[in-house]
Amino acid sequence: MYKLAIYSFIAIATSTSFVFLPSPPKSYYHSLFISDSLSDNSSIANHLFILTKRPHVAGSEANAEAAAYVLLILTSYNIKSHVTSYDVALTYPVSRSLILTPSSSEKPIEFGLSQEIYENDPYADVANEVLPTFHAYARSGTANGPVVYANYGRVEDYATLREMGVNVSYTVVLARYGKIYRGDIVHNAYAAGAIGVLIFTDKDYGGAKWFPDDKWMPPSGVQVGSVYDGTGDPTTPGWPSTGECERLSNEEVDDSGNVPLIPSLPISSADGDAIIRSIGGKEANVDWQGGKDSPIYRVGPGPAIVNLSYEGQQVISTIQNVIGVIEGEEEPDRFVILGNHRDAWTFGAVDPNSGTAALLEIVQRLEKLQKRGWRPRRTIVLCNWDAEEYGLIGSTEWVEENREMLASRVVAYLNVDCAVQAKNFRASATPQLDELIIQVAQQVKDPDNSTQTIYQSWLGSSNDTTVKLGRLGGAGSDYAAFVQHIGVPTLDLSFGDGYPVYHSMYDDFVWMKKFGDPMFHRHVAVASVWGLLALRLADDEVLPFNYLTYAYELQKSAEQLEAEISENGISLVPLYASIEKLRKAAIKIEDDVKALKAKRSWASVRELNDRLIMTERAFTDKDGLSSRTWYKHLIYAPSRHDDYGSNSFPGISDAIERAKSLDSTDSWRSVQHEVWRVARAITQASLVLSGRLT
Amino acid sequence: MYKLAIYSFIAIATSTSFVFLPSPPKSYYHSLFISDSLSDNSSIANHLFILTKRPHVAGSEANAEAAAYVLLILTSYNIKSHVTSYDVALTYPVSRSLILTPSSSEKPIEFGLSQEIYENDPYADVANEVLPTFHAYARSGTANGPVVYANYGRVEDYATLREMGVNVSYTVVLARYGKIYRGDIVHNAYAAGAIGVLIFTDKDYGGAKWFPDDKWMPPSGVQVGSVYDGTGDPTTPGWPSTGECERLSNEEVDDSGNVPLIPSLPISSADGDAIIRSIGGKEANVDWQGGKDSPIYRVGPGPAIVNLSYEGQQVISTIQNVIGVIEGEEEPDRFVILGNHRDAWTFGAVDPNSGTAALLEIVQRLEKLQKRGWRPRRTIVLCNWDAEEYGLIGSTEWVEENREMLASRVVAYLNVDCAVQAKNFRASATPQLDELIIQVAQQVKDPDNSTQTIYQSWLGSSNDTTVKLGRLGGAGSDYAAFVQHIGVPTLDLSFGDGYPVYHSMYDDFVWMKKFGDPMFHRHVAVASVWGLLALRLADDEVLPFNYLTYAYELQKSAEQLEAEISENGISLVPLYASIEKLRKAAIKIEDDVKALKAKRSWASVRELNDRLIMTERAFTDKDGLSSRTWYKHLIYAPSRHDDYGSNSFPGISDAIERAKSLDSTDSWRSVQHEVWRVARAITQASLVLSGRLT
Repeated sequence: MYKLAIYSFIAIATSTSFVFLPSPPKSYYHSLFISDSLSDNSSIANHLFILTKRPHVAGSEANAEAAAYVLLILTSYNIKSHVTSYDVALTYPVSRSLILTPSSSEKPIEFGLSQEIYENDPYADVANEVLPTFHAYARSGTANGPVVYANYGRVEDYATLREMGVNVSYTVVLARYGKIYRGDIVHNAYAAGAIGVLIFTDKDYGGAKWFPDDKWMPPSGVQVGSVYDGTGDPTTPGWPSTGECERLSNEEVDDSGNVPLIPSLPISSADGDAIIRSIGGKEANVDWQGGKDSPIYRVGPGPAIVNLSYEGQQVISTIQNVIGVIEGEEEPDRFVILGNHRDAWTFGAVDPNSGTAALLEIVQRLEKLQKRGWRPRRTIVLCNWDAEEYGLIGSTEWVEENREMLASRVVAYLNVDCAVQAKNFRASATPQLDELIIQVAQQVKDPDNSTQTIYQSWLGSSNDTTVKLGRLGGAGSDYAAFVQHIGVPTLDLSFGDGYPVYHSMYDDFVWMKKFGDPMFHRHVAVASVWGLLALRLADDEVLPFNYLTYAYELQKSAEQLEAEISENGISLVPLYASIEKLRKAAIKIEDDVKALKAKRSWASVRELNDRLIMTERAFTDKDGLSSRTWYKHLIYAPSRHDDYGSNSFPGISDAIERAKSLDSTDSWRSVQHEVWRVARAITQASLVLSGRLT
Repeated sequence: MYKLAIYSFIAIATSTSFVFLPSPPKSYYHSLFISDSLSDNSSIANHLFILTKRPHVAGSEANAEAAAYVLLILTSYNIKSHVTSYDVALTYPVSRSLILTPSSSEKPIEFGLSQEIYENDPYADVANEVLPTFHAYARSGTANGPVVYANYGRVEDYATLREMGVNVSYTVVLARYGKIYRGDIVHNAYAAGAIGVLIFTDKDYGGAKWFPDDKWMPPSGVQVGSVYDGTGDPTTPGWPSTGECERLSNEEVDDSGNVPLIPSLPISSADGDAIIRSIGGKEANVDWQGGKDSPIYRVGPGPAIVNLSYEGQQVISTIQNVIGVIEGEEEPDRFVILGNHRDAWTFGAVDPNSGTAALLEIVQRLEKLQKRGWRPRRTIVLCNWDAEEYGLIGSTEWVEENREMLASRVVAYLNVDCAVQAKNFRASATPQLDELIIQVAQQVKDPDNSTQTIYQSWLGSSNDTTVKLGRLGGAGSDYAAFVQHIGVPTLDLSFGDGYPVYHSMYDDFVWMKKFGDPMFHRHVAVASVWGLLALRLADDEVLPFNYLTYAYELQKSAEQLEAEISENGISLVPLYASIEKLRKAAIKIEDDVKALKAKRSWASVRELNDRLIMTERAFTDKDGLSSRTWYKHLIYAPSRHDDYGSNSFPGISDAIERAKSLDSTDSWRSVQHEVWRVARAITQASLVLSGRLT
């Protein structure tokens, strides 16, 4: 506090022309940024309230209005801002019907498929703007057949069904939400021979009481969402959907393997329960059962027959990314990018506008810093993405459009999607950022326990003596194109990991105010952590990247891999050797940083920082993953059977899966080839980090 | 001269501690560099004499000695230097035989297949170190069949043969050298059904008198060379041949389509003449005939039967690149790279050591500049490549090994292969370098006419009012990996365009001294031009790149393309639109350069230069050309049927060729897709050049 006061004085002094006084160090502004004096939970709440007044799905007028609001706020805080639009293929529901015939002797039941409005719901008057529950990019069509219950619809669940003698062919699969990405639930059902899929909300999301009385999902609540397995506009894979661009035909999109070929619908826990009760056959395993008070779950097929009918329409819709730029004073051509999406399936109080509100809070604080004389060393770019929900579309199109420039100029990408879902800080990152995240978490107070830092609570929530950081191989949010397509150091933050009313009509301001973050202190904390990370990356003379952590993580992954393939004649020697090179280069660059202190020039600092930035790029390979070449990163990419799941060495994993199924010499040789490819990428990274030509 | 004298004084003064005197501007050193006072034709001649004492094919002890010599010279001129080795798959001849049976009634003739030593040949004692004449990577095996004469062995020559009713199946093709790359002569013969190929030196290379009495190839002279169609070590496509690296199996190399599947031999004009005389059948067209005094060329098949037998062995050999680095004072992390290869099929006086001698002359002059106080702004890297003759191997492996660092740090690559073949300056370049080459050519005197500049002579040798510059789509020398794989601004220089004793035993110091460059003034001129280009690129504060020329060149290529495909419903609108964007960005950056003058900081200059550098990278596409993905550049790549030939928009050309042959809707749709891809790459380039995010 003392330090703050001193510099406040100097700052004022310099603004009245005592120009020879040194301006405060960046660290002064960084402390100020996270101080109580600059935080404002009421304006965050207000931003969230305004952003979530109406449902604002991508392509809607309401979402364009929300874009205008974000642009207005950025501009009002003197941020140079603009809207970047794309015309992308989105789908909307036209008609849906679901009829259950419990048995041949019973009358068919037609489900209403609507989420109930509760008494005194302040959003009742705009509830009609919520889209009918559906799956984006679901196949239009009708499926009529006996029902099979398939647990979470994972590959291993179908293996269990096979072992139980259950034939899934020509059935309609009933699966419950959870564990894997819903698009893969549909994909796996199709692969097993099903003709349609229903996905219901099970008790994972429910309680004895529910919203508005408790945080849990009401029985009529439905998790809508996308079932698209790709990234970006499905009709423009790898290039931006700008103007009169090239587009794939419907047939080509179907052939891509990224859109479902059988219809599907998301349904409520109430409807799911009704169907479950009419499924006979063998009793499902214990871990396939529901919560207490649930009936016994059986696997079928039938006797229940369902008739599922869905018709959607694909529309080329205009989406808006809002982009704000605070130009760096010393290195305008190095970008620290903060990103959050704006589009929501319904009101989006958690997903994603808790993040948008935090972004606007950061903008407000940065303006205050600027008024006190701060200018970032590097350029800060603030991105508010559109159409994330459909398939990370706004961010992906933008990355594809600006790919070449981003590839050479981006320092790091900092993503926040659902900023506040519950308590407990959570972070995922490419490993060179781990140390920075920990440092920042040690500086910000825990919003749920002001006697300790976020770091202390984070530690406490784990059984380890170290905090647990996730990795970014999944395709769960807008970081995907940055990490997986162009290889940018990236992180993703939130409080909480999941919330019951996810993607339902109940994800609104009332829920947030009552259950998510009543005092908006978690929002304030997200803004502090996210903003301070950005400030460190934008202002630190030498970038706070630590590649020893990366080498350590790679070593762990290699050891896990070794356990998995030890008996198949695959040599990991080249992989270990490359990791050792990276480790040495990571040690060397620490020495280079120390050496820098003696003979410090702009150019020498820049040279060193560029090595730190470009090392991550070197983990990408131009050719990408075999048969899914958009994914260029050889360390992190989505798992093949769960788009949300993350694989280390995804190319090796893909090859192992194939080899295990074919068990031919050639297929195992491919595994070795993929090991070589990863080893070569890591070797490239070590050369870039060392800064030496061979 | 006056200006030079002044600065000489200041330079001396500063070296004795008058440190407040401004050091001379870079332009002073640049003028000094090309002044007569620094040039030294006798030391160039001496370098060439020493380098060419023995035949020094890649992988030989003699070539390792030559590497040691280059390293010694670099080191003696205080250049930090090292050798970078690779273990690569080279092939050497084990046995060869060629038997001609002119007709069933005549006795077989076995050819000697050796190049004659002339009287008093000073290299007679090392002539046994010259490899037996062969084709590198030729298929081992025997071919026995009637001979067909196929002119230059181009695709169109086989079309002519078909029209003449000549069936090439199971024949041995006799083709003459010229027009296309010898590897494609073999490839095209194989595609036509031939079982073996002989390639002879025709009168293109001959005269009434010959070496040592005249510059022409002796009747026994043979052009050896590679018939490999790829780039870099065939067993390590896309990655460096370092240590215990992954290697393709022989079967995989065969499957790559880059190595011939039928045996071939190069033969002399004398042997070719003997075979020609025993071919009957229809008389070949006028433009297929030989020079005066030649017999009438007929196409066959037969009656002559040849039995061609070749056995080669593949050896993993160690090759040495010699790399020297003069570190930049202000921008050590920006590289201007000069490259020339060292390995030769025989003595290599023209190919390539005229270039090596010029490189060493540059090194000598640069040391003199350094002694007078010059330091380059950017880093100059001097590369002496190995195994170029086999398939650009040394340069390609090095680019593949250092790919990620080179991709972000290289300003330009300046290649010289056969520096001096004859008179007449010749240059090829990516078009943003055109203007710089012209400027430099305007500063250096023509070695063959000291009353004018190289530029004036260059103009005079063309019928146009502008000089003619080549482009770099072919794979003729070590620039290929730089341009076509990573997208670096690149140029290639020489005096003369072809010489009669090319790749024969007679390419020695005597030939050079007698016919190529008796006074070594052309060598001096190459060193002046090449070195001054390097100095401008290393020292100019704002890089001398002009992208308006690039836009103009693309426009021309697009118009040529339009003429070719106008009737097939292909729209070039996106292509023209992208070129217009590039043109606008090229104009804008000129304004940005002017604006810079007011507010000039290291960072703002760097930002602008990086845009100029990285624009070329943006012409590359990660996915590369369809079915030959190593080639990433979408503007320049080798022609499919002539590795030496160059295509603009090679992906479009490939697709058109396919569409013309299949003529299906899908194949024409692929052409349109390739047009889109090029348009998108040019759009990326325009965004990078403009420096603006969308």
